[in-house]
Amino acid sequence: MTRTQEIPLAVSLGDPAGIGPEVLAKCWDNRERFALPPFVAIGDPRSVAAVWDGPIEVVENPRQADGAFDYGLPLIQLTAPKADIPGHPSVAGAHMSLDSLEIAVGLARSGSAFAVVTGPVAKEQLYAIGFQHPGQTEFVAERCGISPGNVVMMLAGPTLRTVPVTTHMPLSEVAMALSPALIESRGRAALRGLQRNFGIAEPRLAVSGLNPHSGEGGQLGREELEIIEPAIAALHAEGWRVSGPHPADTMFHDRARANYDAALCMYHDQALIPIKALHFEDAVNVTLGLPIVRTAPDHGTAFDIAGQDRADPRPMAAAIRMAADNAMLRAEAVA
Amino acid sequence: MTRTQEIPLAVSLGDPAGIGPEVLAKCWDNRERFALPPFVAIGDPRSVAAVWDGPIEVVENPRQADGAFDYGLPLIQLTAPKADIPGHPSVAGAHMSLDSLEIAVGLARSGSAFAVVTGPVAKEQLYAIGFQHPGQTEFVAERCGISPGNVVMMLAGPTLRTVPVTTHMPLSEVAMALSPALIESRGRAALRGLQRNFGIAEPRLAVSGLNPHSGEGGQLGREELEIIEPAIAALHAEGWRVSGPHPADTMFHDRARANYDAALCMYHDQALIPIKALHFEDAVNVTLGLPIVRTAPDHGTAFDIAGQDRADPRPMAAAIRMAADNAMLRAEAVA
Repeated sequence: MTRTQEIPLAVSLGDPAGIGPEVLAKCWDNRERFALPPFVAIGDPRSVAAVWDGPIEVVENPRQADGAFDYGLPLIQLTAPKADIPGHPSVAGAHMSLDSLEIAVGLARSGSAFAVVTGPVAKEQLYAIGFQHPGQTEFVAERCGISPGNVVMMLAGPTLRTVPVTTHMPLSEVAMALSPALIESRGRAALRGLQRNFGIAEPRLAVSGLNPHSGEGGQLGREELEIIEPAIAALHAEGWRVSGPHPADTMFHDRARANYDAALCMYHDQALIPIKALHFEDAVNVTLGLPIVRTAPDHGTAFDIAGQDRADPRPMAAAIRMAADNAMLRAEAVA
Repeated sequence: MTRTQEIPLAVSLGDPAGIGPEVLAKCWDNRERFALPPFVAIGDPRSVAAVWDGPIEVVENPRQADGAFDYGLPLIQLTAPKADIPGHPSVAGAHMSLDSLEIAVGLARSGSAFAVVTGPVAKEQLYAIGFQHPGQTEFVAERCGISPGNVVMMLAGPTLRTVPVTTHMPLSEVAMALSPALIESRGRAALRGLQRNFGIAEPRLAVSGLNPHSGEGGQLGREELEIIEPAIAALHAEGWRVSGPHPADTMFHDRARANYDAALCMYHDQALIPIKALHFEDAVNVTLGLPIVRTAPDHGTAFDIAGQDRADPRPMAAAIRMAADNAMLRAEAVA
């Protein structure tokens, strides 16, 4: 990513008592090594100062971030009634993380930021203050005027991208939740996302089976025959390059991964186990189907290590870099 | 593994039309590079000659294998009515693969071989000739006088070992199939196997959750609270070092893997996805709970590439090496 854009990328700091402020500050420290574009943080500067001794450049307008970026971490200041203590989440911190998210998304929506990266929040804390969305993704979708059902979560690492068809539900409910229509819809969103965000003109999607050995022709489950294969056929009929259903255990080794641009997985852990086994330090959560580019590091608030200078900034750096790359590819596609 | 033993390791060639003969012959070719102990193949020499130009040393007794090993691939000859064609499985080939397995196991049982490695068979072909076991593992268990319920499959690679609690069943049936007793029994077998086959005096077992995020305290499924945690508590009470339930997606990255000697997983793909993503070329299927050491390369007959000199011998080499290591550790423990 080169600095051809004057506008920066907006990063919400997430929960001020979590590791969000620390990992973003470390990203600024290592901005050259990580090859990061100018970014502006949104949040309480005290949450950064509590865990980092570097320079903070408070700006009032994102357009000042580019010029300030060489001198300190550019930050649009939000002020909480009192500063949070790292590792000790609070109601005020939950409000702060929500305000930070709201403004960061707004900047991306208005074009004042070229993409948004969201720091980790504590859902329980957000629910306690009335947050009604399952997670940040659905909140971002609503703010963009998109139905949450039409956005898709992709986990993207250097050698693997996965998209789960179902996400946060008990494993025993997954089989019942699958339908050809759902798989088609997620598959289509994944394929379009590969085109728009990753610049792949003719993306290849590998669809996993649900059961061991992809059901062995119906011997170990019939969902492949009755649900997954019809969905693949329908996507084929639309002209997409789709393969499968593949046995999930043999989809993720080096040579197998070379045959597709993303894997469409039937459930949460089927998508998350391989990406985190292979790319724990640099897997990025990318939301596809939005009018803006939004990514997030694929980790939580990690309250247990907050404020101890132990948090790894690489996932946040990967999220920033991927947001910048995605935004550039989308801008090129439009131009 | 040094050549202190005079007796060899026995390898059944598996289906003569599959890649078993080719990968074993390539192992002999590369016996020094792969650091392999003397082994003797059991099967039809024509199935080897059809895919390999190297020397075959037909022996009548496994004790001749050690001396013959420097000159050619030692082989105890079984003769089928006619030779199989690579890539074209037949009824005669199924009989051959079963005879080969029977003799290889018998040699290990009698002490004429120090361990057995089983080549890949075609289950459909075996079922067609009346084979009644789900797979080779159960057959080996029966020949050893062990109830199939008391043997456990472990997938072992250089940096990860996994043991599935349930195996070949539809995913939708997994939750119902789990019980504290089953998890305890599999966990205990895994822990004892780590002691006996891997020489780990105080093995550490990490138990996975079933649901996303390990159920999030019951929000995403209650199996962790009601089934898995009681099983862990029971194993704890016996003095074993057992942790979990761990969210499956964050169990398999480098640093996480350093915290345990084996992962006990709730279902087939939860155990197989990470091992094959990380160790596709050298994951070994180890059967624990037997009076003998038995391993197998973790791949099938691959009829589609048989006879084309394309099969990768590394999984077979890893299976032979691990069988030798396991056998040595068991012999030392007894001595």
